[in-house]
Amino acid sequence: MSPIQNGRVLFHSAPKDFPVPGETTVYDTTQTIDPATVPLNGGFLLKTLVLSIDPYFRVMMHGIEGQPGFQVGAPLAGFGVAVVVRSETPSVAIGKHVYGHTTAHQEYSVVPELGALQIMEKHPNLPWSVYLGAAGMPGQSAYIGWKEYSNAKAGEVVFVTAGAGSVGSMVIQLAKKDGLKVIASAGSEEKVAFMRSLGADVVFNYKTTDTRTVLKKEGPFDIYWDNVGGDVLEAALENAAVHARFLECGSISGYNTGQPASKMFHHINAKALHIHGVIMAHLPLTKYLPEFYATVPAQLASGELKYTEEVTRGLDKVGDVILGVQKGTNKGKAIVLVADE
Amino acid sequence: MSPIQNGRVLFHSAPKDFPVPGETTVYDTTQTIDPATVPLNGGFLLKTLVLSIDPYFRVMMHGIEGQPGFQVGAPLAGFGVAVVVRSETPSVAIGKHVYGHTTAHQEYSVVPELGALQIMEKHPNLPWSVYLGAAGMPGQSAYIGWKEYSNAKAGEVVFVTAGAGSVGSMVIQLAKKDGLKVIASAGSEEKVAFMRSLGADVVFNYKTTDTRTVLKKEGPFDIYWDNVGGDVLEAALENAAVHARFLECGSISGYNTGQPASKMFHHINAKALHIHGVIMAHLPLTKYLPEFYATVPAQLASGELKYTEEVTRGLDKVGDVILGVQKGTNKGKAIVLVADE
Repeated sequence: MSPIQNGRVLFHSAPKDFPVPGETTVYDTTQTIDPATVPLNGGFLLKTLVLSIDPYFRVMMHGIEGQPGFQVGAPLAGFGVAVVVRSETPSVAIGKHVYGHTTAHQEYSVVPELGALQIMEKHPNLPWSVYLGAAGMPGQSAYIGWKEYSNAKAGEVVFVTAGAGSVGSMVIQLAKKDGLKVIASAGSEEKVAFMRSLGADVVFNYKTTDTRTVLKKEGPFDIYWDNVGGDVLEAALENAAVHARFLECGSISGYNTGQPASKMFHHINAKALHIHGVIMAHLPLTKYLPEFYATVPAQLASGELKYTEEVTRGLDKVGDVILGVQKGTNKGKAIVLVADE
Repeated sequence: MSPIQNGRVLFHSAPKDFPVPGETTVYDTTQTIDPATVPLNGGFLLKTLVLSIDPYFRVMMHGIEGQPGFQVGAPLAGFGVAVVVRSETPSVAIGKHVYGHTTAHQEYSVVPELGALQIMEKHPNLPWSVYLGAAGMPGQSAYIGWKEYSNAKAGEVVFVTAGAGSVGSMVIQLAKKDGLKVIASAGSEEKVAFMRSLGADVVFNYKTTDTRTVLKKEGPFDIYWDNVGGDVLEAALENAAVHARFLECGSISGYNTGQPASKMFHHINAKALHIHGVIMAHLPLTKYLPEFYATVPAQLASGELKYTEEVTRGLDKVGDVILGVQKGTNKGKAIVLVADE
């Protein structure tokens, strides 16, 4: 066998807004390879079968804090499945399939070791492509995120954005299995029809139907699965129920436009943060108040716990004390002493 | 006894930025009362002892969605302690003390029933004022919020803002009891000294020391107790550890300036939202993947779970597919088919 073309997709330059085929990425045909003779040096030769193109690619184009993104001049890498065509690695047999997020966007790759790749078996009735979608990273994000963080209870309401996507469509189905009412949005009539076929109770095209109107009518919701961020996240915040859970999975609305909302989102998502509103009205008082009053006042009285206060005498001083509290000039818990007993 | 002045603090008008004593609130002396003879109509007469002035007053000046704030022309109401001086309510005896967030800002109040107020006993070695601070709503917010949401573990790092306040100072002490390293900020040297006396490990005056510099040096942190919002919240997001917990308790930085950051914060706090970042890299994979692969592929193959995909043939199409995914024009999970087996 003589050398053949080894097509590759190289990262060329980060776009300002939307990616530009041929500029952001370049399809390169200058490399050749002879699959029969290319030296493996103890590794193995992969023939790429399927590649996953995911929304997070946009983030990889400028990298994430502390993590490198795509390397300029190198092939893109993402989730993919490849078949082993030659091997000098005993544990990686010819004919086996290899899956992982470091799959290079090229037809053939010589790989020195599995690293982040893994040997994968597939279900006989599924194509490999499904292992990049519903049975792959998107499906797993939906499945694990839902199980771990949704705290879903039958009868609750969930709002899912990008509900026809590989993450959203799994979330809709998991929510229906759990007995929830599902409100789901997407950006075309075809996607809306697909969401309906998954069992979503309320489906709409956010391009032709106002999200706030739907949420006001069908909400409030208990869980928000966020794939889009931006103004829809704002709309969701406005229409959430008390103690709603927000699962921040994606922010496609901001990836290409640099909307400020995506900055806060980026940190929440990239660091898997857990953000809890703390407000007296919705704290579990009955769970904790007996313990609080049984321990804290005595500890304050003994000095085991300390406190400060700034007591101002006279009801006529309330306005000044209010201002001081807002400016932070008070030197302890602001108290107005109205009267002696 | 003849009628005496019954001083009151009335809400007059919501301020544009900081409250203006005499304009936002007006101290009114036009009302008189005869404590000995004022009709109780089955209720009881309270003599106000101490009133709490809290940061949330600023929010009450314009009300919160769905909840009325202060009423124009009526006395302010907040947490306070009053003593019962006359009573026609058998369960509310003269000499008892009444505590609650509906305590009116006036010297004497005729109250028809307890409602949100409660009879309170105090520790003999504490003044009533402490029941508005460390042993009151602020202390309880700190105590319950910490116990319920911090998931604190010994050796972790917590960052506390407004650490000399009645909430923050309790958080610092609870964190030290739990064996955490505490980074705490406040706005004066006196407050910094107080935080140090509470055992905080790293204390600084945010007016003279850059928060980001401290967090970069002493962080990343595992828990953020947020009392201030705004740019400090941004700084915290930038310096959080993976799986950090954010306890959103206050946003004083935005109450008087209307900074946009406080809008998202407002919803998180007012609705006690729980926001979790969902990203594959930080999901509990080992906990869920065996279950996922044991169930999901088979359900996809049988049709119990559905999926869509849009397979594009040819590595040279990657750039176009990337663009399509960002624009949302793909009709299913975007897959590039590079080769047949």
